[in-house]
Amino acid sequence: MNMYFQDFKMTENNKPDLEKIAKEQHAIKLAQKEKESNYYPEKLEEFGLKTINRFVDFHPDPSKYMKLGITFGHKGMEPVAEAMANNEPWAVVSGLNPSGPLHMGHKAVFDELLWMQKNGADVFIPITNDESYVVGKTSSLAESRRIAIEQVIPSIIAMGFKAEKTKIFIDSDYMDIYNVAMDLSPHLTLNKAFGVFGFDKSEQGENPGTMFYRSGVQLAQILLPQYEEFGGPKPTLIPVGIDQHPYIQLSREVARKKGFIPPAELDLKFMWGLDGKGKMSASREESAIFLTDSPEVAKKKLKKSYTGGNPVADYQRQHGGIPEICPIYTLRTYHFESDNNVGESCSSGEILCGNCKNEAVEQTLDYLSDHQAKLPEARKRINEYILTTPIRSIFK
Amino acid sequence: MNMYFQDFKMTENNKPDLEKIAKEQHAIKLAQKEKESNYYPEKLEEFGLKTINRFVDFHPDPSKYMKLGITFGHKGMEPVAEAMANNEPWAVVSGLNPSGPLHMGHKAVFDELLWMQKNGADVFIPITNDESYVVGKTSSLAESRRIAIEQVIPSIIAMGFKAEKTKIFIDSDYMDIYNVAMDLSPHLTLNKAFGVFGFDKSEQGENPGTMFYRSGVQLAQILLPQYEEFGGPKPTLIPVGIDQHPYIQLSREVARKKGFIPPAELDLKFMWGLDGKGKMSASREESAIFLTDSPEVAKKKLKKSYTGGNPVADYQRQHGGIPEICPIYTLRTYHFESDNNVGESCSSGEILCGNCKNEAVEQTLDYLSDHQAKLPEARKRINEYILTTPIRSIFK
Repeated sequence: MNMYFQDFKMTENNKPDLEKIAKEQHAIKLAQKEKESNYYPEKLEEFGLKTINRFVDFHPDPSKYMKLGITFGHKGMEPVAEAMANNEPWAVVSGLNPSGPLHMGHKAVFDELLWMQKNGADVFIPITNDESYVVGKTSSLAESRRIAIEQVIPSIIAMGFKAEKTKIFIDSDYMDIYNVAMDLSPHLTLNKAFGVFGFDKSEQGENPGTMFYRSGVQLAQILLPQYEEFGGPKPTLIPVGIDQHPYIQLSREVARKKGFIPPAELDLKFMWGLDGKGKMSASREESAIFLTDSPEVAKKKLKKSYTGGNPVADYQRQHGGIPEICPIYTLRTYHFESDNNVGESCSSGEILCGNCKNEAVEQTLDYLSDHQAKLPEARKRINEYILTTPIRSIFK
Repeated sequence: MNMYFQDFKMTENNKPDLEKIAKEQHAIKLAQKEKESNYYPEKLEEFGLKTINRFVDFHPDPSKYMKLGITFGHKGMEPVAEAMANNEPWAVVSGLNPSGPLHMGHKAVFDELLWMQKNGADVFIPITNDESYVVGKTSSLAESRRIAIEQVIPSIIAMGFKAEKTKIFIDSDYMDIYNVAMDLSPHLTLNKAFGVFGFDKSEQGENPGTMFYRSGVQLAQILLPQYEEFGGPKPTLIPVGIDQHPYIQLSREVARKKGFIPPAELDLKFMWGLDGKGKMSASREESAIFLTDSPEVAKKKLKKSYTGGNPVADYQRQHGGIPEICPIYTLRTYHFESDNNVGESCSSGEILCGNCKNEAVEQTLDYLSDHQAKLPEARKRINEYILTTPIRSIFK
C-alpha cells in the first residue's frame, strides 16, 4: 500500500474509497495552485511593480528563468536594460547568508547571476557571515566564516563565474563594508528602518548587530558598486524575493540622497521546498537538496518529496498532475530542462510522479556529481574572487 | 563702569546700589555652590557608587585629581587597585570624539590617564570619528578623521604618553572594532540598549549608525583590552562623567556574559566652562580654552570668563569669592596648581578676580606655548602610537 493512503478513511468493506480520495486530493492541490497563481500578480499590483515582459521581448537572448516566468517582475530596471544594450558598466548584488552549504534554491539565483555576468554585469556577492551570527544561525562569526570559506565560496566558483567580473567578500573579512555602512547611516533614520523591518523586542529579538546589519550593512552592500573604487554611480540590479520590495525601496531613497542611481529590483519566484511547506530552505533540511549532499541522501529526499500528483494513479492519468505546486517539477524546470516539457507531460497525465521522480533523481545526481567534482579545483582559486579593494573615497 | 553692572537697576539718584547688588550676586552664587555640592553625593547614592577615599588612603601616590576630590567615585575598581598593587596588567579606555581640537577639559582627563599609565595601565584611546560623523558633529567621516590626525592625536602624544603603553585608534581606520562590536552584539538586546540610551524618533534623531555606535562600537572599545590579542581578561578602568554610569553597568553585564572582568567605572567631575553655563565643551566655543588657541584668543576668553567672584570688590574682600563654581579656579586647580592655595586665597577674599585672571592667563599661555611647541615633533611620531593589531581571535 502506498504511503499516501495511510491516513485515509476506509470504506465500509474496509477498502479505501479511491475515487473519493483522488477527488479530495485533486481539489486541495487545485486550490493551492489557485492561491499561488494569485500571489505574485497581487504583489506586483500592491507594490506597483512591472512585469519583465517588455524586457524579455526586446532582449536578444533573455535568461531561461525570464522566459519561463520564474523571473517575473521588476522596479526601476530601465537603466540596467539600457546599460546592457549599450555595453555600459552595470552591476548586480546578491548576498548570501553562510549558515550551511548552498542548496538548489541558491543555485537558481546564481544561474540568473551567471546570465547577468554574460550580459555584462559585475557580480558582487557579499557573504554575510555577520548576519548569520547576529541572527543566531551560527554560534560565532568564526563558524559562519568557516562555512563561507569551506562550503559556500567554492560552490559559487564551481558554478562558472568569471574571476575578473566577480567580487566575493565575507563581511567580517572585508571590514570596509562597515565604513560604507557608517557613511550611509545619516541618510536613513532608524525610525524609518524600523518601519520596514519591524522591531522585535523579545530576548531573542533585535540586537545592535541585527539592526545594524539590516539597516546599515545590507544597504552598504547594495550601494557598494556605485562607490568611486568601482567606477562610481552605475545601474545596479538586485535579485530578490518579492517580499523584500519595501527594503529595496528604502535603498532607492538612500541612493538618491547619495547621488547614486537607485538600484533596481528584479523579482524571482522561490523554488518550492521538497517538503511542500514553502520555499526551499536550509532551515528545513528535508526541503532542500544541498550541493554537498551524497547521492544516497539526495535520492532519499527526492523519493520522499511532496508532488503535484495524485495518490491514485488512474485518476492522475486521466486528470493530469498539478506541476505549478510541485517541487519536483520546479527542480527539474529550474535546473535541468530548457523548456516546459515536464510541465506539459505532467498536466496532460502523460508522466506520473514515480517516473518523474526517477528522472529527477538521475538529473540531480548527475549535477551533484559534476558540481562536487569541481570543488577541489574551485577551492584553490578562492583568492582570485575575493574582493580586497579598500574603500578610501570616503576619506577624501 | 564694569560690565557686570550693565543690567543692574540704578538707585533713585541714578547710582547703582552696590550693597544690594553685591548681596544678590553672592546669594545667587552661594545657591549655585549649594546645588553643585549636592549633585555628586546624590548621584553616588542614587547609583550605588563608592567614593575613592579608601583607594586614596592606601595608594602610595594618588593622583592630584584624586587628592583634590576631582576624581571622586567608582564602581568595581577593586580588581584594578589589586592589579596596580601587584604590578599586574590592567588597562584604561578613554574614547574621544574628534569634532575639533582638544581643550583643557580633555587635558584634565588625559592628565588622569597619564597618572594611570605611570601606575602600570595600558592606555587605549579610541578616536571615535564614526561617532562624530553619525551624530552630525562633522559633515563626513573624512572630516572627523582629518581632525583626528591633524589636531587630536598630536596633542595627545605631546602630553607625554609612552608609545609602548598607549594604543590610539581611529575607528574608521581600525575597522576590526566593528568585528568586535558584531561579536558582542548578541549578548545585548537592542531593547535593553534603548532603555539606557533612549530612542530619538525625530528626523535628526537616531540613525542606524548612532544606535550601533552607542550600543555596539562603544561596548567593543570598552571590552577590547580583554580580547586575546591584548593578553585576555584583565581589570579595566573607564574614566567617565557620572551621567554615563548606566552605560558602564550595561558593559559590565556584557563582560560577564563574555567571560571578561566587568570594567570598572571611575567618576571625574567635569571642568567648568568659562561661560559658566555648564561643563567646558567644544560646542560652546567661549566655554573652552582649546590647546590650539592663540595667546590672544585664550587671553580674551579668560578675561571674559564667568567667575565665582563678586562684582563689588569691597564685598568680595570682606566675604570672599566662591571658588567651587568658578571656571578660573577649576582651570588653575586642575592644571596649574599642586594644591588648593588658589581656592583658599579666593574664599578668604585675599585675591580678587582680576589678579586671579591675570595669573590664569599667564599660566595658560605658558602651557599653550609649551604644548604647541611640542606638536610638530608629536606629528612625526603618530605611527608609533597607532593600534593596528588585527583581532583574529574572534575567528578561532
